[in-house]
Amino acid sequence: MSLPHALLGVLSARPMNGYELTKFFDASTGYVWSAPQSQIYPTLRRMADDGWIAGTRQSRATALRSTVYSITEAGQAELLEWAGHYHPPGPARDAFFLQALYLDMVPTRRAREVLRRFIQHHERAIAEWESQRDALVARETPLLVERLRARPPRQHARIARLKASVFQGEIDRSEALIAWARAQLDLL
Amino acid sequence: MSLPHALLGVLSARPMNGYELTKFFDASTGYVWSAPQSQIYPTLRRMADDGWIAGTRQSRATALRSTVYSITEAGQAELLEWAGHYHPPGPARDAFFLQALYLDMVPTRRAREVLRRFIQHHERAIAEWESQRDALVARETPLLVERLRARPPRQHARIARLKASVFQGEIDRSEALIAWARAQLDLL
Repeated sequence: MSLPHALLGVLSARPMNGYELTKFFDASTGYVWSAPQSQIYPTLRRMADDGWIAGTRQSRATALRSTVYSITEAGQAELLEWAGHYHPPGPARDAFFLQALYLDMVPTRRAREVLRRFIQHHERAIAEWESQRDALVARETPLLVERLRARPPRQHARIARLKASVFQGEIDRSEALIAWARAQLDLL
Repeated sequence: MSLPHALLGVLSARPMNGYELTKFFDASTGYVWSAPQSQIYPTLRRMADDGWIAGTRQSRATALRSTVYSITEAGQAELLEWAGHYHPPGPARDAFFLQALYLDMVPTRRAREVLRRFIQHHERAIAEWESQRDALVARETPLLVERLRARPPRQHARIARLKASVFQGEIDRSEALIAWARAQLDLL
């Protein structure tokens, strides 16, 4: 149930057509909850069926831009209900840690290669998250610019800081994993 | 494709019946990749069809204990192939960080409650992982005891340390998330 809420979150900034929505999504929320375009359109249709968003057809527009979606009162209530309550995570399922349980069985050079590629993956992720964090602090991401238009100026700094800090959380987690993988390399 | 490899990993210790397998699984690998019993039996049947494990029926045994499964040469090769190569993770999808992007929209007391319960969840997880880590270092977990019987004594310390360290990785990650959530509470 996370993609509908991710899309509600984007649409809570302002009404937009499907083309804009996927653009904004890919450049913001998508870094935390990624989804292919093939999932976004069917999800929007279900959300409209559920009354969380309303689509208005624009005449004389290309197919992708023909419908402007806006969040309804019910959608706004759903977004706040979801964001305001804790949802316990599913059972622990970490594919990499599972694999790591068996690194003692493979040749050391293979185990080292697996850990090195794990470190590289997280280093690349950190670089992406850092640029997203910095753009949010500077209030330069396209979605945040749109969103702040509708919020009182005295709240702007807090909103930007809280959102940027989510990316800091992703960074902190990846840094902890890199430090662990380096210690694991030493153990091998 | 992780559950079959998790089960291969357990069966690589020694042949065992379904009852033992689920017991060992729940007390070891299951902490990293949890799976309900309802998933384990169909997966075992598919693994037997694929030739990764072989089941031998024991006469005069109760239903649950009637088949003893052992890993085949093909299964052992698959386990080592999987463990020895890096598998890139799927796209970033973190339900909690997604929710955290919208904590600025809800009343502060609700946002604080969400973060406090997130911290509690990770504190409980850390306690479980710590006891698993310590039992592995002490070479006291039932599966490790079985596994070490078939491995040369000079390798025992390294095997125990490497497996214990996986739980340290889970702990390190959860500690990073708790520290982040506390900073987020201050930001609110």
